[in-house]
Amino acid sequence: MDEFDIETVADPSLRDPILIEGLPGVGHVGKLAAEHLLEEFETTLLRRLYSEHFPPQVTIEDGTTQLACLEFHYVDLTTAATSSEDDESSDDDVATNGSTTPAEQSVPNDLIVLTGDHQAQDPRGHYQLTSAILDVAESFGVERAYTLGGVPTGELIEEYSVIGAASSDALIDELDDVVEFRDNEPAGGIVGVSGLLLGLGERRGFNAACLMGETSGYLVDPKSARAVLEVLESLCAFEVGYDALEERAEEMEEVVSKIREMEQSQAPTEDDLRYIG
Amino acid sequence: MDEFDIETVADPSLRDPILIEGLPGVGHVGKLAAEHLLEEFETTLLRRLYSEHFPPQVTIEDGTTQLACLEFHYVDLTTAATSSEDDESSDDDVATNGSTTPAEQSVPNDLIVLTGDHQAQDPRGHYQLTSAILDVAESFGVERAYTLGGVPTGELIEEYSVIGAASSDALIDELDDVVEFRDNEPAGGIVGVSGLLLGLGERRGFNAACLMGETSGYLVDPKSARAVLEVLESLCAFEVGYDALEERAEEMEEVVSKIREMEQSQAPTEDDLRYIG
Amino acid sequence: MDEFDIETVADPSLRDPILIEGLPGVGHVGKLAAEHLLEEFETTLLRRLYSEHFPPQVTIEDGTTQLACLEFHYVDLTTAATSSEDDESSDDDVATNGSTTPAEQSVPNDLIVLTGDHQAQDPRGHYQLTSAILDVAESFGVERAYTLGGVPTGELIEEYSVIGAASSDALIDELDDVVEFRDNEPAGGIVGVSGLLLGLGERRGFNAACLMGETSGYLVDPKSARAVLEVLESLCAFEVGYDALEERAEEMEEVVSKIREMEQSQAPTEDDLRYIG
Amino acid sequence: MDEFDIETVADPSLRDPILIEGLPGVGHVGKLAAEHLLEEFETTLLRRLYSEHFPPQVTIEDGTTQLACLEFHYVDLTTAATSSEDDESSDDDVATNGSTTPAEQSVPNDLIVLTGDHQAQDPRGHYQLTSAILDVAESFGVERAYTLGGVPTGELIEEYSVIGAASSDALIDELDDVVEFRDNEPAGGIVGVSGLLLGLGERRGFNAACLMGETSGYLVDPKSARAVLEVLESLCAFEVGYDALEERAEEMEEVVSKIREMEQSQAPTEDDLRYIG
Repeated sequence: MDEFDIETVADPSLRDPILIEGLPGVGHVGKLAAEHLLEEFETTLLRRLYSEHFPPQVTIEDGTTQLACLEFHYVDLTTAATSSEDDESSDDDVATNGSTTPAEQSVPNDLIVLTGDHQAQDPRGHYQLTSAILDVAESFGVERAYTLGGVPTGELIEEYSVIGAASSDALIDELDDVVEFRDNEPAGGIVGVSGLLLGLGERRGFNAACLMGETSGYLVDPKSARAVLEVLESLCAFEVGYDALEERAEEMEEVVSKIREMEQSQAPTEDDLRYIG
Repeated sequence: MDEFDIETVADPSLRDPILIEGLPGVGHVGKLAAEHLLEEFETTLLRRLYSEHFPPQVTIEDGTTQLACLEFHYVDLTTAATSSEDDESSDDDVATNGSTTPAEQSVPNDLIVLTGDHQAQDPRGHYQLTSAILDVAESFGVERAYTLGGVPTGELIEEYSVIGAASSDALIDELDDVVEFRDNEPAGGIVGVSGLLLGLGERRGFNAACLMGETSGYLVDPKSARAVLEVLESLCAFEVGYDALEERAEEMEEVVSKIREMEQSQAPTEDDLRYIG
Repeated sequence: MDEFDIETVADPSLRDPILIEGLPGVGHVGKLAAEHLLEEFETTLLRRLYSEHFPPQVTIEDGTTQLACLEFHYVDLTTAATSSEDDESSDDDVATNGSTTPAEQSVPNDLIVLTGDHQAQDPRGHYQLTSAILDVAESFGVERAYTLGGVPTGELIEEYSVIGAASSDALIDELDDVVEFRDNEPAGGIVGVSGLLLGLGERRGFNAACLMGETSGYLVDPKSARAVLEVLESLCAFEVGYDALEERAEEMEEVVSKIREMEQSQAPTEDDLRYIG
Repeated sequence: MDEFDIETVADPSLRDPILIEGLPGVGHVGKLAAEHLLEEFETTLLRRLYSEHFPPQVTIEDGTTQLACLEFHYVDLTTAATSSEDDESSDDDVATNGSTTPAEQSVPNDLIVLTGDHQAQDPRGHYQLTSAILDVAESFGVERAYTLGGVPTGELIEEYSVIGAASSDALIDELDDVVEFRDNEPAGGIVGVSGLLLGLGERRGFNAACLMGETSGYLVDPKSARAVLEVLESLCAFEVGYDALEERAEEMEEVVSKIREMEQSQAPTEDDLRYIG
């Protein structure tokens, strides 16, 4: 095997496709969001990307092995599942940034969603992997990428804000009525593929922005994933249902409420409630 | 030295050889099984594979040094040692999956058994090493590989089941009356050469399956190695004696019974007996 | 991306430029000193050096991402900020080595100052990164380099000595009335880019010296950075104000005096006062 | 810099030179022995070998930096220092293996002694570094190498045995009246350059043997270094004085006797005395 081995599974012609990246990271926010899109729409697997930068591992499904890889999926936005209808009413407690009125775009771009279970294993691997991803994106004519992730706050979240970062000032101007940009936040920058797609993408002429859902950093966070997706709905002019994410969120809520109970039994004041562990 | 250095020791013409891999891993199940074949049959050393991905080390035998390497051996299945005769009667406590009636194959394939003391030292090394192994296998006309290993259960084993994984659905159909395939098991996938020979092999046109003996994961496990070999006997149409493995198994039994005693002196109920440590 | 990616931002013609390196290290002495030059003079960004040897990371400023990089700046020594005038009188407690009478050089060399937030992540990366830096320096006609750093003493510093090391005996002869050279000090040698610019530079014909400010090794040390800069003033025939560094030094002084208080409350004699922790 | 950078310092014509390697390792036995030869004879520095596999570091001597490297020295065996005369009488407590009657060789081989402060930083580095060393040796016509090291016993040593390992059975036959070869010892094999010079050297046609002085493994051990050198005297037909090593040995003896005192104050029987810590 070479450093990268890209398997062509399907090769449809796509209309000005936008790359959406959601790999494992803080709170699994990006991964949850990307995988939610794959579940809610009809999709076509386009490419598998194998790499010696991934763990030397196969996964097993029904006895058959699958070599560690990333997958590029075409998501057909015209095929929203029926579960999306009644979803708007059930989530009053989720705050988003300007995503209530999706942009009325006449001809929406096609979406390519990148998912997988792995990031690279060392610094050089991250750089090379990101370059390989940009190569694939370029081969489909992608000029714009949104990378999805979580930003750890160290606190349980009440209002699910989404913070943006962009590869250029021009892109900030375009996006800043839909997502919030803050000075020097996140302070630690963005590590891994979600960051490098902006850093390396900018050097290759891509417009790329990262959408980061605030999340405690201690838990898998479907609510943060929903907040990120709601921003993405505005940016990419689609609508999606959230029943499946809400279900997972409720499971996590139970975990969270148990944590709160444990805290309250130890600390008397409201202020002390803000930090876990 | 280049990344790999392959020494040709012998170069016989082999009949549709199957590659059997047994390198160090969980419970040393694969290594024990592969080395047992080398002890019970007459063998010919075919190749030594040296690599800078192995530890920078020589071993010493009778004062002479041997650079770290893997070895490919031809195993002559017509030369079973005499110790195999009385072995069937002595192992009533070893359960296997359908291996009691070896397939009546008219002309059995030749076997190439891969053994050694090392795996690669990092992810890239695993990928490159597996590719080098496949290169050697290809040069002998190998089209099928069985990789041998252990799957950790975290419990002492009573019934030695063998779980399979295969590089394709077609291969599962062919093997599933001899070895058990389970949904999503092992959950952690298969790591190292035993897994990559399936993952990378499949991409190069090999048919490859992994035979994993259940084992506690805490001990070197000759009984699990025997269970794996009994499946292999069915798959490859040979018979082998198990006296030597049984002897090692009895030594390990003594260790296990001491562990059980220690547990029983601490825990009163049968249920508590299931987990070590 | 290749192993290195060098972005040309400006390309002025420079007069016999000297390279000044100040990257993160002991007490951040070199980084503080180099960044102080950028703050006190007008500068022109010449090059950004990107590398897969840096962390896979972007930093964020006002919402815009910047890929991890080192920066080469031209520093215009004719543009000293006005804050430098009254500075000589306020620092009686800072001892330097022969830097009180700056060399009266008729036509001073131009300066290129190398700054950044990162060193390489492994040994090979350090060697390759240093070679890449020397390539850039060579392209500007640089023949001489001063690398700035700190040398840990394990004690709080009263007199801020600066120790030198040079790539050749001839260079020691030239510098030893301005900076002190000691036998076998620092005992541990010099690690990272500051050391390799001498070691690899010498093999490529550069004259290179390292100026190391003594520092406790426990704290960010603006006073040590000032001591180093005062030596550099003599070597490169410029004058600079220190108000900003003094301000940061006073902040650190408060930290230091708190540490002393804690020590005094535990240890009765003066001698015991010399070591922290 | 390339992966390796070899600096030619002198290039004399040598007579059938033998390579002697003594790099840092167990008890620093090999390094002490090799450096002792450099101190006792007149030498000529032949080559410096720089490598990105070494730590990214310069050392400092009298203010001048030296990039991390290994050094190949020609040792002129006709120039033994006068200190060697009275040394035979002073070391009754040092046992060696058959080294009392040096081989009466008519025309001794020239010696190239390899010394340095570093081994490589990872497995691949060890393999590549050893290949580079063999390249240099080959360029001088070297066909035989003795690598020097220590073998840890875990006990304080009374009789300083020297164990051998050789790259071929023929070489064992040649050496086994001067050095002892044992079955499967050392059990852990030989790690690093001392081992790979045999393993890789054998594959390139070198005759190579490793001489390992028994040593506790807890202390720098000049007595073990002397035992190794006494074997080397026989093998290479030279004589050398040991005053300097004896002096260092006496310093270490004081350390050892303090350890024994500490042990005796804790343990009453002779048997308990055998193991440290």
